[in-house]
Amino acid sequence: MSKKLIYLDNNATTKTDEKVVEAMLPYFSAEYANPSSMYDFAKKPANAIGDARGKVKDLLNAGNEREIIFTGCGSESANMAIRGVLNMDKNKRRIITTKVEHPCVLNLYQALEKEGYIVDYIGVNAKGELDLAQLKEAVNFDTALVSVMYANNETGVIFPIQEISEIIKSKNKETKLFVDAVQAAGKIGIDVQTLGADLVAIAGHKFHAPKGIGVLYVNPRTLITPLIVGGHQERGLRAGTENVPYIVGIGKAAELAIDGLQYEATEVRRLRDKLETNILKTVFNSRLNTGITNRVPNTTNIGFEYIEGELILLHLSDLGICASSGSACTSGSLEPSHVLRAMNVPFTSIHGSIRFSLSKYTTEAEIDYVIKSLPGIIDKLTNISPYQDELEALKKLKT
Amino acid sequence: MSKKLIYLDNNATTKTDEKVVEAMLPYFSAEYANPSSMYDFAKKPANAIGDARGKVKDLLNAGNEREIIFTGCGSESANMAIRGVLNMDKNKRRIITTKVEHPCVLNLYQALEKEGYIVDYIGVNAKGELDLAQLKEAVNFDTALVSVMYANNETGVIFPIQEISEIIKSKNKETKLFVDAVQAAGKIGIDVQTLGADLVAIAGHKFHAPKGIGVLYVNPRTLITPLIVGGHQERGLRAGTENVPYIVGIGKAAELAIDGLQYEATEVRRLRDKLETNILKTVFNSRLNTGITNRVPNTTNIGFEYIEGELILLHLSDLGICASSGSACTSGSLEPSHVLRAMNVPFTSIHGSIRFSLSKYTTEAEIDYVIKSLPGIIDKLTNISPYQDELEALKKLKT
Repeated sequence: MSKKLIYLDNNATTKTDEKVVEAMLPYFSAEYANPSSMYDFAKKPANAIGDARGKVKDLLNAGNEREIIFTGCGSESANMAIRGVLNMDKNKRRIITTKVEHPCVLNLYQALEKEGYIVDYIGVNAKGELDLAQLKEAVNFDTALVSVMYANNETGVIFPIQEISEIIKSKNKETKLFVDAVQAAGKIGIDVQTLGADLVAIAGHKFHAPKGIGVLYVNPRTLITPLIVGGHQERGLRAGTENVPYIVGIGKAAELAIDGLQYEATEVRRLRDKLETNILKTVFNSRLNTGITNRVPNTTNIGFEYIEGELILLHLSDLGICASSGSACTSGSLEPSHVLRAMNVPFTSIHGSIRFSLSKYTTEAEIDYVIKSLPGIIDKLTNISPYQDELEALKKLKT
Repeated sequence: MSKKLIYLDNNATTKTDEKVVEAMLPYFSAEYANPSSMYDFAKKPANAIGDARGKVKDLLNAGNEREIIFTGCGSESANMAIRGVLNMDKNKRRIITTKVEHPCVLNLYQALEKEGYIVDYIGVNAKGELDLAQLKEAVNFDTALVSVMYANNETGVIFPIQEISEIIKSKNKETKLFVDAVQAAGKIGIDVQTLGADLVAIAGHKFHAPKGIGVLYVNPRTLITPLIVGGHQERGLRAGTENVPYIVGIGKAAELAIDGLQYEATEVRRLRDKLETNILKTVFNSRLNTGITNRVPNTTNIGFEYIEGELILLHLSDLGICASSGSACTSGSLEPSHVLRAMNVPFTSIHGSIRFSLSKYTTEAEIDYVIKSLPGIIDKLTNISPYQDELEALKKLKT
């Protein structure tokens, strides 16, 4: 790359770690056997899948390798979990989820509503915290599934999964809990046993494995139907010749993620906090879109009042800085973030909200560059904002 | 590899072409942006997906790039096609398929039968040719879907898709034709427009792209529901962050496949024919499991009477020769091949049937080595067969 690149959009996707690429390479053109074949040549890829499954088991602290199902992406894991539970008992028609789930998951629930399911959407407060009283109220005898994300992709807010699980199970032992942990994996420790989750989805490309590989953890007490029916692979729960290179890759990424959790919790957090603190200090019309500290360490979401987020992103892009105004899946759409709306972020701020998401590759020099460059961009855009009176009033208030 | 490897199981999976690996590599750790992101850094991966789509369109001679949907594997493509058609009109409950489809597809139809669908299974004759009269008879007003493979994975027999399409449409214009072309891609030309197919599935790993990427061709007159609901990717038909490296890889593999079709039709065919002719000539208890010539050029399936196929495979594996007794998805099972049973291959031969499937990487020296080595293996196993009287009678008959 000739141009400078400061990649602060790691919640959209991450760089594949070179160590992951190195681990995968032998399985393309050398050890390429179909792991289901019976000759000696198939043993190495078959064993490699076993090793990778063990590493992913460790990442999630699952009880047994059999609980780890490899899929083609996080969306597939989510579809498989949700449809898989609902198909086991078609008489149960109630689902509970949150207003701030990833748009991909929400789209599936909208499709299920059209199929006759009743979906309750639990709200959040201004800090992005889930309304647990509303959740408790909503669970009843007919609730097949509760679906809650572990960490929000836009704000990084972590939901109290263990407490949620206890609430659910206290009201209906048979209700299954699906946790979309896509934004948690690699950022904070995940212990599926302590969490009390029945199904947990993660996606490799959010923690330095490639795009195109996901995992569904299925606890031994949870029966589901497969989404992709066919061959015997993945205990009959997910047909298709195993993607040996990417399975090896997500195994390696899981190993690296376990080793890297301490770095995430300290250095990545320190850089995120430095970025956040400095922007909030130097830009008078900036506003942190969540007050609480219980967030994944790499994410900050800051609103710039009375200016347009897309314009900020374009100016950042000109400097080689990649950030986001929400989910990449909804980019192109000018709809304001459903997460920030659920948090009642003021209209004047919601359109100018930017998510910065760091990774282990983020350097202090990069953060310093953003801290140095951003105020000028915001200043320029503030000067051409049609809301000059409001900005003037805000400036007076803040200084 | 220190040990000799003669890989004649290319219908199970193929070596990823080094040129494909080379094309993919930049998209792991350099051009790793999420293609849905709006900054400049995302343009190269987004464009790379467009290029790859164009190449796959060319491989299938589709009318428009929009007809090409990238999926996570061939099984996903098949599930998406079949469920996708059936979900569009749940009142239509009849499906027609063949007795010799890939086990993965047959497993899905068995699941659909349990859901109340009525599935007719069309038979084949001793040459493996489809009973078109039975097919014509079976199509009626209520037939939602006809599902026929293009080339059989075990025998290589090619089905007359164009004729099948005409038969179906003459009886019911609304019946959709799904073609599992997984074993055809890269071996023979595929022209979806001439074929008259509504949906066509292919899998990258059968033509030197990696395992873990598939394609579903959907013609513009065919509406289907998505299998994986979520983001806007693939025109809303397949959610999930795009697997940029593998999409680039299958594009490159498609380009190479188009260029290589002539080589398949001449050199690969010549080597296959040489192998087949020599085995049939030198092994008295061998028998070709299909008489007709309309086969993909890389596949031969030969029965060795009164001996056990698994034992032959183990002895071949000791010499570094990889072959198969059927689908890798059913390996481990001792059930005799459903394809050979449908062809009424004699019981005495069906258990000793071996599939050899070549590729562009197969050399004359490798074929010569198999021709030289196989008779000794068969001789040894024949000598310990419990069917000595029958073998003696057969020997007299043949000499």
